[in-house]
Amino acid sequence: MRILVTGAGGFVGRALVSALAPDHDVIAVDRVCDGLAGADCRIWEGDFADPALLDQALADGCDAAVHLATVPGGAAEQNPALAFDVNVSASARLIDRVAAASPSPRFIFASSIAVFGDPMPTLVDDASPLCPRLVYGAHKAMIEQWIATMTRRGAIRGLSLRFPGIVARPRGVSGMKSAFMSDLFHAAIAHEPFAAPVSPGATMWLMSVSRLVANIAHALHGAPPAEPYALTLPALRTTMAELAQEVARQTGAAPSLVRYDPDPALEAGFGRQPPLETPTADAAGFRHDGSLEALVTAALRNISESDFA
Amino acid sequence: MRILVTGAGGFVGRALVSALAPDHDVIAVDRVCDGLAGADCRIWEGDFADPALLDQALADGCDAAVHLATVPGGAAEQNPALAFDVNVSASARLIDRVAAASPSPRFIFASSIAVFGDPMPTLVDDASPLCPRLVYGAHKAMIEQWIATMTRRGAIRGLSLRFPGIVARPRGVSGMKSAFMSDLFHAAIAHEPFAAPVSPGATMWLMSVSRLVANIAHALHGAPPAEPYALTLPALRTTMAELAQEVARQTGAAPSLVRYDPDPALEAGFGRQPPLETPTADAAGFRHDGSLEALVTAALRNISESDFA
Repeated sequence: MRILVTGAGGFVGRALVSALAPDHDVIAVDRVCDGLAGADCRIWEGDFADPALLDQALADGCDAAVHLATVPGGAAEQNPALAFDVNVSASARLIDRVAAASPSPRFIFASSIAVFGDPMPTLVDDASPLCPRLVYGAHKAMIEQWIATMTRRGAIRGLSLRFPGIVARPRGVSGMKSAFMSDLFHAAIAHEPFAAPVSPGATMWLMSVSRLVANIAHALHGAPPAEPYALTLPALRTTMAELAQEVARQTGAAPSLVRYDPDPALEAGFGRQPPLETPTADAAGFRHDGSLEALVTAALRNISESDFA
Repeated sequence: MRILVTGAGGFVGRALVSALAPDHDVIAVDRVCDGLAGADCRIWEGDFADPALLDQALADGCDAAVHLATVPGGAAEQNPALAFDVNVSASARLIDRVAAASPSPRFIFASSIAVFGDPMPTLVDDASPLCPRLVYGAHKAMIEQWIATMTRRGAIRGLSLRFPGIVARPRGVSGMKSAFMSDLFHAAIAHEPFAAPVSPGATMWLMSVSRLVANIAHALHGAPPAEPYALTLPALRTTMAELAQEVARQTGAAPSLVRYDPDPALEAGFGRQPPLETPTADAAGFRHDGSLEALVTAALRNISESDFA
């Protein structure tokens, strides 16, 4: 299977390309592809929004695409016009270009739980309406709509997967408002103090990057998507205190290194995630990490295997 | 109230500007404004997608906007890239520009029942999911999402109104796939033969343009919109045969002038409109024409009053 991956040089992209490359012909596109040097894939360094680059990368067609590239939440709030250009305009063009490259290719879109807005309802399930408040979430919901329409038309076989918080992202400026969930891991590994910007009781939906990659691979190979061509992925729901305790246990860091200094905006946006039910995704074979212990183990292993440890 | 109207030179726009101009400061924008010559409004002839034109037109701010300009359904299918530029990109920029012009202005968006897709479900009500299949319907659904998000953020007080078939549009190339509903009226007035491209039993949701204008004015002046900031307008549901019979009765045209030559695609897209329930819009004071007789009378009066009789 020939698979186009946008955002291939990023955190999720690198893990996905590593997983797919042994068995597939992977076309990796990103503006920076340094992290892909060792991967057995075709690398196109450049912007997925560049039509000429796409024409070259898709010259032989493709059987599937995974669209990860995005201007993330915090950065989208800072520059909504750029976010629209990338997250809506260029993403819609990409979908159209992939549809033109081959007959009805699979198209997996990295959507986000940001489509549910904040504050979230008291329960999120497959009937929950999309109520984004962040620019990022609105843009994801708009492209979900285009993917569903193009799928109804038979131009693609599209599926939007709404990602929960993915851990552990690399340290540093990611433009992700939820970066603190990953920074906790890095601080614990280094036995450094960590100031959590949410309260101990803050509840969050999490998934390890290796579990996410397994879910994306499942979407590429599994049964054809069905209406409404968008799924909320299952996620493990944990409190910040439970997460901090398990990370400390597995890293040997002193639990007292973590203190809590809640930022009301972050607490409201990322620390009030309610019970989550995902029967459609569950029935289709998508999975969360199974336990907090397994999630933390997977996230720590990912850090130790990456260039960013 | 200072009100920006895009698409002001079009069929609905001219009727709306005529109704609003006596009591309001209307800023009328359209690429062709010939039909507005006699109206007491400020005319900006040009493209609403042109940022410089918008800057000039909105130099004094505005209290409300009604966004009618669009690449319609048939034309959008012919040129999806142009349709995206106008119906999505430029429309999102317009919303942002209006939001920047004044604190939380009203923003009324001309959406469409095309968001429900085709075939439609056996009943459409306020819980019906958006399942567009046409490019046009997908673009409308995407902008509905942006309007709702900008309203949640307090940047605008937005409301998307999903228009049913509006009669009677002027004769000629409108880019509307549903133009046949209006062409029936013009043929009857001229006592000319008319070949309906749907079956006698085809069911359609209709509204006269004068009723639509009253509903838009109600949206401008009524209670603030509420979640999800989008409403399906009530509409009169009629069969093609019932409509043809009533039009013949009121115009004196021979009923035998109408013959039926169904086009399967038009029948599927526009002739299978199921029972419609709009309790939210009803409770908010939006109304359909009340009876088929009243609808036909209003539509015929509109033709006789327009430049297109």
